[in-house]
Amino acid sequence: MTSSYNKINNQLLEAIRLIVGSESVITQHDDLEKYSHDETEDLRYYPEVVAKPKNVQEVAALMKLCNENLIPVTPRGAGTGLSGGSLPVMGGLMIAMERFNQILAIDEQNLQAIVEPGVITEVFIEAVAEKGLLYPVDPASKGSCFIGGNVSHGSGGPRVVKYGTIREYILNLEVVLPSGEIIWTGANTLKYASGYNLTQLMIGSEGTLAIITKIVVKLIPRPTLDTLLLASFSSNEAACGAVSAIFRAGVIPSALEFMERRGVEWVIQHDGIAFELKEGTEAFLLIEVDGTNQDVIFSDCEKINGVLEAFDCKDVLFADTSAQKEELWRMRRTMAVSVKSNSVYKEEDTVVPRAGLPQLIKGIKETGSKYGFESVCYGHAGDGNLHVNIIKGHMSDDDWNNRLKDGIREIFELTVSLGGTLSGEHGIGLVQKGFMPLKYSEVHFELWRGIKKAFDKNGILNPGKIFE
Amino acid sequence: MTSSYNKINNQLLEAIRLIVGSESVITQHDDLEKYSHDETEDLRYYPEVVAKPKNVQEVAALMKLCNENLIPVTPRGAGTGLSGGSLPVMGGLMIAMERFNQILAIDEQNLQAIVEPGVITEVFIEAVAEKGLLYPVDPASKGSCFIGGNVSHGSGGPRVVKYGTIREYILNLEVVLPSGEIIWTGANTLKYASGYNLTQLMIGSEGTLAIITKIVVKLIPRPTLDTLLLASFSSNEAACGAVSAIFRAGVIPSALEFMERRGVEWVIQHDGIAFELKEGTEAFLLIEVDGTNQDVIFSDCEKINGVLEAFDCKDVLFADTSAQKEELWRMRRTMAVSVKSNSVYKEEDTVVPRAGLPQLIKGIKETGSKYGFESVCYGHAGDGNLHVNIIKGHMSDDDWNNRLKDGIREIFELTVSLGGTLSGEHGIGLVQKGFMPLKYSEVHFELWRGIKKAFDKNGILNPGKIFE
Repeated sequence: MTSSYNKINNQLLEAIRLIVGSESVITQHDDLEKYSHDETEDLRYYPEVVAKPKNVQEVAALMKLCNENLIPVTPRGAGTGLSGGSLPVMGGLMIAMERFNQILAIDEQNLQAIVEPGVITEVFIEAVAEKGLLYPVDPASKGSCFIGGNVSHGSGGPRVVKYGTIREYILNLEVVLPSGEIIWTGANTLKYASGYNLTQLMIGSEGTLAIITKIVVKLIPRPTLDTLLLASFSSNEAACGAVSAIFRAGVIPSALEFMERRGVEWVIQHDGIAFELKEGTEAFLLIEVDGTNQDVIFSDCEKINGVLEAFDCKDVLFADTSAQKEELWRMRRTMAVSVKSNSVYKEEDTVVPRAGLPQLIKGIKETGSKYGFESVCYGHAGDGNLHVNIIKGHMSDDDWNNRLKDGIREIFELTVSLGGTLSGEHGIGLVQKGFMPLKYSEVHFELWRGIKKAFDKNGILNPGKIFE
Repeated sequence: MTSSYNKINNQLLEAIRLIVGSESVITQHDDLEKYSHDETEDLRYYPEVVAKPKNVQEVAALMKLCNENLIPVTPRGAGTGLSGGSLPVMGGLMIAMERFNQILAIDEQNLQAIVEPGVITEVFIEAVAEKGLLYPVDPASKGSCFIGGNVSHGSGGPRVVKYGTIREYILNLEVVLPSGEIIWTGANTLKYASGYNLTQLMIGSEGTLAIITKIVVKLIPRPTLDTLLLASFSSNEAACGAVSAIFRAGVIPSALEFMERRGVEWVIQHDGIAFELKEGTEAFLLIEVDGTNQDVIFSDCEKINGVLEAFDCKDVLFADTSAQKEELWRMRRTMAVSVKSNSVYKEEDTVVPRAGLPQLIKGIKETGSKYGFESVCYGHAGDGNLHVNIIKGHMSDDDWNNRLKDGIREIFELTVSLGGTLSGEHGIGLVQKGFMPLKYSEVHFELWRGIKKAFDKNGILNPGKIFE
């Protein structure tokens, strides 16, 4: 890999314009602003040029040009990432995939779809739902994120806990390699044992290996019924303790989300959600059970209730109407935005085996006390996946900029000691890569570098991310 | 990678003995026979030496020794493979993992287990079942295959159709690299977005990247009820056509297996299974529905029945007792062995999007007519995964050895044209690698070679497989 990239000169800019058309090239500083950040803290990195190709041939031509001229290339989806994966830290060309916004086919015979990477996740979910089908990967940002970004980050969402991760739903990918070559990574099949699985390798590779241009997705029949309940607890540990007990009782809920009191408070304040927050309630579990039979759902809810009682649950609220369900989900989904609108923040995406959650949240709070930061935690507790929002609040700039990283390190050390890792669904990108040595050795880094090199000999694609 | 491997001389043999102990080293030709073949056709390749390490340190020391001395290393599980993946085609050292036969932990808090690769799959399935848990990956050879081999081949089995592939259940692996370095590939978490996913890369890599020494497995609550039914059809196409229609009706069965009449005939003849084969029945679907509620199972069965009628199903037999269920499953599971005990054979492991099955089986039979071979087909139809057993029968040796491969090529060409690939769960190993260019380009081969090189610079590990 190289560190001596070139700048985009006039000749190259002209070549880029010839490939995608002048109207699809951005060079003005003001117009580039939108592409200089994602949802990660308040970081800003400007690309030199943004190109918006409309088809795979244009992507291939751009890649070939940049590869031959050692121009860094940063692929960009919707810019909703939380780890800085789409920030063009070395400048160069940004390839924005927003014009790849077509659902090409929903194959009801095979329960598969072919979709372009720039389709908004929720648009796709709704399109297949109209056919009675389910695509269960629905991150909180589903209303704005792109499905291509979800694949690149190994994104999750609440329903993964029952239906399996994105790895189970992405069957095949059309990708453009840095060389400009176009390949399909695998086959449109539910099973695959035909050589190293390039599809799986692409998932979670954060745009560092190739650019995705088509996605073949597995779909399943959509459950017709669901029940949603909100359980209140007097402590974080009690709520987290109930999580693994629910599975041990033989139930797999279709969502099992944790929310801290402070998060709910901010949602009430900032989003005008009407909710009576009782004295002594410190944490919540939002639990959804779905299926096709009301008796089974009822029986699952009874089992869950038994567990909740054993963990000192103070109150269980059943959502009676669609509107109530929608309101409870809105509380969970807007929490990230509400919390972040309050203060400068950093978000960490810890994941542990789920029975480790009580220890994890206890440790996070202790670390907060030690370093003087407030944290608001919520997340996909059923998967052991806890998002930790660290709030600057009254912390001094010096503590925030210098001392805080030791606190974050302690949180990750605890995560790793519990059998977990640094990210469950947000990726490593730019902001977490400094913490990677807490979990991974030089042997891992060397393997990753070797894999990177197999795809991207010149190191032009999304440089400076994950491990570089 | 190198093609100039060395032989194991006396000095190296002594070093191997020092590492694992003399009693765990095999050098006598007669004793090596068992290790010279797997279940692939009648192929025989003798290793120079077999070593049976008992722990990861011994595996690491053997790998380091062989890597430094350019000795080919072939890892071996139970030797039940169907593509020749464990055949030591370059001689050298075989590392037999049979002493890695311990279930190290079943963690009922997290619904996870840690298991050594040499544990027989069925032993593991039964051990977790005793705790009310399910590990749903159960290939037909489950009574003899090792779980490590299952991971290496991306193995499946009937239940994958409902519960997801082995990729969803393998969370983390301890592996030894050719250099002798020992790493964990990931974390013990249900979700993972922390760098290139080495765990997923190992699954299906057929022992060419590293040797697995520990496996962290995800478990789920075990369903308590199931119903099994056998549906008879007057044609292969009708049976295969019903497969995708069942899913479209909103049902995900826990098994959906296809069997041709000829396979059932041979099972009756060879395994003494009592079954009345009616005139005009040409194909069967074995369908299992499981769950925790009898009403739901009943309602699913009614939906299935509706589909079966629409596809001209002639007869549906419900298994009333455990003994009947066992007998029907035995029919399906012993089919491979029965068919193969009749004749010299070749087994192909085609996989297509499931609605392509009728076209696939029609094409297979047409190709058989053209080239003069009989085939017996069965498999995991719900996954679009059809095992094609080609029977030598009365075919001349010349046709078998020379002309047949053109017929097989035609079958794979059809598979690929339907959106499928060469193997869904058996792997490519030795015997299918010649057909890989039907699906994959030199660009794929170059990527795979690069990945291989990142793990195995000297090319010592299981050389001559998949793509080499």
